[in-house]
Amino acid sequence: MASDTQSKLQLVHAHIRAFPDFPKKGILFRDICPILKDPAALKAVIDLFEEHVRKNYCHVDLIVGLDARGFLFGPLLAQRLGVGFVLVRKKGKLPGATVSVAYDLEYGKAEAEIQEDAVIPGQKVLLIDDLLATGGTLFAAYELMKKQQAEVLGSLVVVELKELNGIDKLRPLSVFSLVQY
Amino acid sequence: MASDTQSKLQLVHAHIRAFPDFPKKGILFRDICPILKDPAALKAVIDLFEEHVRKNYCHVDLIVGLDARGFLFGPLLAQRLGVGFVLVRKKGKLPGATVSVAYDLEYGKAEAEIQEDAVIPGQKVLLIDDLLATGGTLFAAYELMKKQQAEVLGSLVVVELKELNGIDKLRPLSVFSLVQY
Repeated sequence: MASDTQSKLQLVHAHIRAFPDFPKKGILFRDICPILKDPAALKAVIDLFEEHVRKNYCHVDLIVGLDARGFLFGPLLAQRLGVGFVLVRKKGKLPGATVSVAYDLEYGKAEAEIQEDAVIPGQKVLLIDDLLATGGTLFAAYELMKKQQAEVLGSLVVVELKELNGIDKLRPLSVFSLVQY
Repeated sequence: MASDTQSKLQLVHAHIRAFPDFPKKGILFRDICPILKDPAALKAVIDLFEEHVRKNYCHVDLIVGLDARGFLFGPLLAQRLGVGFVLVRKKGKLPGATVSVAYDLEYGKAEAEIQEDAVIPGQKVLLIDDLLATGGTLFAAYELMKKQQAEVLGSLVVVELKELNGIDKLRPLSVFSLVQY
């Protein structure tokens, strides 16, 4: 790995904090707020995502970001690549004709939603979020994209929690992460 | 106004859609999703915000963005200015020590929250969101910043709904908007 890439990864890593027992006992919460607070660390995240995308995909039409922390990184990456950004939101937030997919939460269910005209069949899209845990929301976004006949190239996250095996749940969707725990 | 500024404003304006009776009867919802979908329109928003900030404030320490659509624009502006971005979230989303402020919704109350260490006394901050309606959330963010003894320079929104008089509620906080209805 180029030393420039390595030093950017270290910078990102150094700006993630851990909070035990949040949001509830037994969960170690990885907090990405310090990345946003530091312009060099945030730039490093986008540099690394851009490098990965340019190396692996010859064409991308849209970046698709997940409510709410995917919104922090998605528009930045989309601007770097000169492409549009599409919002996947919690149900009931988007006006007009929408398409939704239900997914399981720890307790009960939730629904992810996009505007029906957000993507057109055949468009090549990349999904983005801050963190991969069990992969529930990311999988719902993947399903939404397939429903609209978009071609999902892969997904990008800043942090991957490996012990939760989100990667397995998401197969065949590939996940690129900057920091793994 | 410079013709370049004027054409950027027109581009932004052309990428806002109106949906009647959303989220409920009688409300005309202004949808900014088309701005995000078009890289030139999103760039225009950030260009116009940056121009305003550089013209009016000699120093800014932080951009403070509101959950969730303030997250779409805030990090982009913060990167342009080379400063950090701070998240104001709905209560219960941020780990660690937090500070919160309650505000009125149409039915009941909500709370806006920041991490206690998000801002230090005396830091000069600008608030950002997608849209100013009644100003409730923006005012809560303003109160949070004052509580932490930050110096709030002003606020930025893409869309201002003038008939709801949010501006009056927010005084003395200044509001800069790109498009007014």
